Amino acid sequence: MPYDPIHVNGRSYARPQAPTIVVCIDGCEQEYINQAVQAGVAPFLAQLSARGSVLAADCVMPSFTNPNNLSIVTGVPPSVHGICGNYFYDAEAGQEVLMNDPRYLRAPSILASAAEAGCSVAVVTAKDKLRALLGHGLRGICFSAEKADDANEKDNGIGDVLARIGRPLPSVYSADLSEFVFAAGAMLLETARPDLMYLSTTDYVQHKFAPGTAGANAFYAMMDRYLLRMDQAGAVIGITADHGMNAKTDSAGRPNILFLQDALDEVLGARKTRVLLPITDPYVVHHGALGSYATVYVASRDHLATAIQFLSRQDHVERVLTRAEAAAEFELPPDRIGDIVVTAKRLSVLGTSASRHDLAGLDVPLRSHGGASEQRVPLLFNRRLTSVPARRLRNFDVFDLALNRTGAPGGAGA
Amino acid sequence: MPYDPIHVNGRSYARPQAPTIVVCIDGCEQEYINQAVQAGVAPFLAQLSARGSVLAADCVMPSFTNPNNLSIVTGVPPSVHGICGNYFYDAEAGQEVLMNDPRYLRAPSILASAAEAGCSVAVVTAKDKLRALLGHGLRGICFSAEKADDANEKDNGIGDVLARIGRPLPSVYSADLSEFVFAAGAMLLETARPDLMYLSTTDYVQHKFAPGTAGANAFYAMMDRYLLRMDQAGAVIGITADHGMNAKTDSAGRPNILFLQDALDEVLGARKTRVLLPITDPYVVHHGALGSYATVYVASRDHLATAIQFLSRQDHVERVLTRAEAAAEFELPPDRIGDIVVTAKRLSVLGTSASRHDLAGLDVPLRSHGGASEQRVPLLFNRRLTSVPARRLRNFDVFDLALNRTGAPGGAGA
Repeated sequence: MPYDPIHVNGRSYARPQAPTIVVCIDGCEQEYINQAVQAGVAPFLAQLSARGSVLAADCVMPSFTNPNNLSIVTGVPPSVHGICGNYFYDAEAGQEVLMNDPRYLRAPSILASAAEAGCSVAVVTAKDKLRALLGHGLRGICFSAEKADDANEKDNGIGDVLARIGRPLPSVYSADLSEFVFAAGAMLLETARPDLMYLSTTDYVQHKFAPGTAGANAFYAMMDRYLLRMDQAGAVIGITADHGMNAKTDSAGRPNILFLQDALDEVLGARKTRVLLPITDPYVVHHGALGSYATVYVASRDHLATAIQFLSRQDHVERVLTRAEAAAEFELPPDRIGDIVVTAKRLSVLGTSASRHDLAGLDVPLRSHGGASEQRVPLLFNRRLTSVPARRLRNFDVFDLALNRTGAPGGAGA
Repeated sequence: MPYDPIHVNGRSYARPQAPTIVVCIDGCEQEYINQAVQAGVAPFLAQLSARGSVLAADCVMPSFTNPNNLSIVTGVPPSVHGICGNYFYDAEAGQEVLMNDPRYLRAPSILASAAEAGCSVAVVTAKDKLRALLGHGLRGICFSAEKADDANEKDNGIGDVLARIGRPLPSVYSADLSEFVFAAGAMLLETARPDLMYLSTTDYVQHKFAPGTAGANAFYAMMDRYLLRMDQAGAVIGITADHGMNAKTDSAGRPNILFLQDALDEVLGARKTRVLLPITDPYVVHHGALGSYATVYVASRDHLATAIQFLSRQDHVERVLTRAEAAAEFELPPDRIGDIVVTAKRLSVLGTSASRHDLAGLDVPLRSHGGASEQRVPLLFNRRLTSVPARRLRNFDVFDLALNRTGAPGGAGA
């Protein structure tokens, strides 16, 4: 090795020997890849089990975008990096706090540390909400597809992005937004050729289309073409997901929703509990802020046992954990979750009050995530791994495996 | 009411006021219907939430075909009717016993009791293995699509079936086998017009095709056409499923299998345990006898705790229950299950020994069932129910709801 490894958050990473790209396919239930391969539209992904490595891993809970993207780029669970959703409730301030600001981040990223150690690093996200968190402390290229027209040398390490990529600014609610991320990645690989790159898409398509349907297959075919192009350019590629995706409806396509706040208010009275949905964010059109994970703040200790008992009896509920249990089992920061954590069954989601969810934007039957049923995700490499750890694999092992266990380059694509 | 209700297994059923048809769509994960409706190929199913009733229910565990078909036609769980799979192990005789014979049935069926009470009754199954169990004690019409050419007046209450239906004998591994069941049902409704009919398909298609893919949508479109035809002929129709269906693979389509016998032999030694897979039957080509439920007979009490501890630590395992726990929670007959019941996670299946499973017949990635992840099934009616019980609904409530709660006929289709 010409240089020392990079140490971040208690883990060591070898410096990239070839351009190394980690891709987070948002909402990539494994079945999307399987079905696209079966349909014959994903020749690059189809050959990975023969010439690369195809593994499965567990994402972190809650199975939401931000906690998992942060885990992937820091190599540690939310108990260490601190981001366990889009919101937490600040009991002292008495308000819900958006965690999109980097000041809530408690751990440095592998990306920033690699740049610090002299590697050239690039990050492209679909939505801008992730850009600030993923790019925190990073000296390198970092921009979002959503705000690609605003990207400039000073703030993003690169300007003229639309012209360089040769694509117009995509709509934030579109498959295009993710295609733009791949197009940007391919352009960067072929021009700046960064040592380390992180590409993170959005799950707009997965929220709308089931695995194997035309809309899903077209999206995976698109990604497959870019992945092949990057493979042929000699990159080491690691692919994982922030979470899976499941239908959350009955056979008529109607969502299975338990409105937790309404239910708790009826049992305990108004303002005795505060239900917080950490999936809530400024972009809720495609899921109506409905996911399979919620956390509940309980005003008085007296109500805690009653609330837990009540919730455990509800039809749509899978698990009810106390703060301590959830922090231990799901590796969450106890100060940023409520007194109770609730997960829903595979086909169900949790809401607050019926009046607070606008489902008008749901033009197709609800598909969503957040629970343990969306924890299993793909973990793929275009190189054969030299070894696989004999322990539970996590999506946040992807940088470790890509940098430390893909061995010497050489097995590049045709 | 002109006549007394029919009493069977502690439940009462009103006599049919119009021809009443209960359909069990084998392996009907709710998403198949949702996707077919979304694709616009199932106009009859699409209108049920507006003019009929769309509910969801839990099937019985194990989520296999025979236990659930028997629960549906008896209105009670396997703890009462005794059929908890295709096989159990007779410890005294020292052999695995096939439970396809009616002598293992411990409860009369609603069908036989209705016939006894003077109703005309017809049963059509896809595979012949179910015919004998479903038709036990029944004076009426009862035949399988598989052996439709053998059907005769004496044994089946009807002869010349192929000619009456106008279709050739279908292959046992085909979508045709299920279409034949519907074609027979429509023919019977339009000729003999039985008071009560039970139609049970096979899950050949669901084992092969994911919801929303072309093969699945074509199958649901076919069923939709027959259902509409029966609806237009004035039948009250109740639709449910014996179990759901899930992918059991990784992103490369390779099955996630825990070979229980191999694993237990390694830990406890050979012949200390006997793993039995109650999904095993003479028709295993499409699932390789791989499902998400297994039962384990343990030779000595000394090994029970060790086996339970070991199994609970395995990656693919969801639940490990003792015989008493499984009998209580899953309502199973304790004398026909092993000392331990094991269920697998949504994406995993349980095998015995690798050498005992022939996966050569799996020409597409494994989809299967057996676990709690396949317990949620549709419960649909072409009439608005007069009331819905405020308790957990089961697929074996379908005759109750169709006969007791569809109210007066009249809301028939266009």
